[in-house]
Amino acid sequence: MSTVTSLHAPKGLEGVVATTSSICYIDGEQGVLAYRGYDIHDLADHSTFEEVCYLLWFGHLPNADELKQLKRRMAEERKLDASIIYRLQLVPKHVPPMDVLRTLVSTLSYYDPENTKNDHDANVNKAIRLTSQISMLVANYDRIRKEKPTVEPDRSLSHAANFLLMLNGKEPSKTAERAFDIALILHADHELNASTFAARVTAATLSDMHSAITSAIGALKGPLHGGANEAVFKILTEIDESGADPVEYVKGMLGQKKKVPGFGHRVYHTEDPRATHLRKMSRDLGQSSGNPKWYEYSSKIEEFIKTEKKLNANVDFYSASTYNTLGIDVDLFTPIFAVSRVSGWTAHVIEQLDDNRLIRPRADYVGAPYPQKYVEIEQR
Amino acid sequence: MSTVTSLHAPKGLEGVVATTSSICYIDGEQGVLAYRGYDIHDLADHSTFEEVCYLLWFGHLPNADELKQLKRRMAEERKLDASIIYRLQLVPKHVPPMDVLRTLVSTLSYYDPENTKNDHDANVNKAIRLTSQISMLVANYDRIRKEKPTVEPDRSLSHAANFLLMLNGKEPSKTAERAFDIALILHADHELNASTFAARVTAATLSDMHSAITSAIGALKGPLHGGANEAVFKILTEIDESGADPVEYVKGMLGQKKKVPGFGHRVYHTEDPRATHLRKMSRDLGQSSGNPKWYEYSSKIEEFIKTEKKLNANVDFYSASTYNTLGIDVDLFTPIFAVSRVSGWTAHVIEQLDDNRLIRPRADYVGAPYPQKYVEIEQR
Repeated sequence: MSTVTSLHAPKGLEGVVATTSSICYIDGEQGVLAYRGYDIHDLADHSTFEEVCYLLWFGHLPNADELKQLKRRMAEERKLDASIIYRLQLVPKHVPPMDVLRTLVSTLSYYDPENTKNDHDANVNKAIRLTSQISMLVANYDRIRKEKPTVEPDRSLSHAANFLLMLNGKEPSKTAERAFDIALILHADHELNASTFAARVTAATLSDMHSAITSAIGALKGPLHGGANEAVFKILTEIDESGADPVEYVKGMLGQKKKVPGFGHRVYHTEDPRATHLRKMSRDLGQSSGNPKWYEYSSKIEEFIKTEKKLNANVDFYSASTYNTLGIDVDLFTPIFAVSRVSGWTAHVIEQLDDNRLIRPRADYVGAPYPQKYVEIEQR
Repeated sequence: MSTVTSLHAPKGLEGVVATTSSICYIDGEQGVLAYRGYDIHDLADHSTFEEVCYLLWFGHLPNADELKQLKRRMAEERKLDASIIYRLQLVPKHVPPMDVLRTLVSTLSYYDPENTKNDHDANVNKAIRLTSQISMLVANYDRIRKEKPTVEPDRSLSHAANFLLMLNGKEPSKTAERAFDIALILHADHELNASTFAARVTAATLSDMHSAITSAIGALKGPLHGGANEAVFKILTEIDESGADPVEYVKGMLGQKKKVPGFGHRVYHTEDPRATHLRKMSRDLGQSSGNPKWYEYSSKIEEFIKTEKKLNANVDFYSASTYNTLGIDVDLFTPIFAVSRVSGWTAHVIEQLDDNRLIRPRADYVGAPYPQKYVEIEQR
């Protein structure tokens, strides 16, 4: 370590600036999230997931023709090798969907026409393919495990509507399509979150896109990351089944020193700007579906935790009730996070490889002093 | 970022101390590598891979009874679900072995009896299982792709001998067994190398062992990491086929501004202590097999690069010729790295989870200034 001064980083690399990036801007104090400089509120109000994909991958908003071309390419990539479907059918029924997604995304490399290429253009093509394929994997696997027939993609639909069609077997209402589209926009990227960082660390050995995205899915699985909204919905369900008052239930959790999921964020110290939209979606979808209870429970819990613990709801808190109202099972919440985040992961891998350096930090050795005397086994 | 002062790290986190660890000690100036305080030279001279596994996972050298028990458990785990073998048979023949290994290790989670457990003891069990299973995956896949019958494991053999038996279809000589055992010892751990770091980043979301090891395999695949010894052997082969003088060939590479693989290391600024052993093994195995040419080419290249570029051979340089002499195909060199390194990866995951914190650094935003004005698509 002589030639480089060693920097002792805080645990978990908290506050360490590990790279430069042109993709995502976050101001944790002001509650700002922006993709390529565009505020998430503008994108949620005016944009579509496909437009956001274009923005993330190509660095600027598309004109009408550019967007049309990307939508056509994404629609054309709505296909999976028959052998991928067959492998989904082989999966034992008890396997967590994130394990299946991690495995099948890794398997997709077998059939990728550019599997041995790792240049910029090939990786943009892989980004487009993986974004279409991952949404199909999640929808197909859910139907296969429920012993329902898989649904053919409709290439005339938006990414959001096609996913809901393939998942639920019927075309979504315009309200549901738009709600899911906004959820996809909100989750598309979030700078160096743990899964994106795992993808960049993997890609930086000059490995490949499928390796990087497989790593990201493995990282996203963890309850400290993508798994948080599943934990939120489990609490809402327990409240509902036990008939407990939501605030009393959460007080009980705090009394047992349990962390209430869906609150606080390492980066935001004010309202998570994604929560603003998800709260509204949760409320509106609850009302329009005639089932406002999840929103009501959530709202009471939010108010209590904000007063009691000074913590803000994060992106995970209201996505739980939103997804449930869209007909999505709780164990698909994290896979659906991947359906969106693959757009950001792939953008980060492309950026990493455009100006690559191996990501290889050091550890501070705190174990048995060197050298330990090696004693033959008979003398131990 | 207000509460934590932000630290701007050098690119690739070079020289950044990302965590404390009790597993591996490296002194890059003195050329020291030690596992749990035990010098790699002592371990290479006196130990076995199973003993090193014990040391990495349990933190101290085993006594005779402890080692016997671990060897029994590792031998008992020499089994793969029939459906894993079937999936190996489904793999199209052109797929790179590292893609297969990444996919099948991810698939192993489906059949792991403790798949939903993530506590210390369950993860030690998974470390044992994965170490046995990964060696079987590599050996079985090589035979299946060559349309040879797979070989049953022999539970009375050492880990090294059983692998060579299952790969080559015959029990290895004592010399070959010991050489491979030493290679396994030398590659077992190397602190926060990129694949280990990928495993820890993945595990730190409280994901699971299979996700972490799958990430590590994806990272190891890259030519800046595990792929380097494959690149070395390709050069040796090209020299042989073209009849070129090894030094002239390498001069030609330098003239074309190409990097010669197998030299230099981010951490070592003197001889990589693993190279010391691999050089000797390459020479001895070359002589005993009656095929010393790969060693001779390597030796001439090493001398030239050392004089010309002041760079030392690293672990990858002499492992190429060593593995070839052991009857291992060039595209298995990186999978074989994984056969060994899984011991260190799993030790690091266990250590990470014993005192976990999410690994989530920040990026320095250098893109389009915020806020960009969102203009409707018709006006773009």
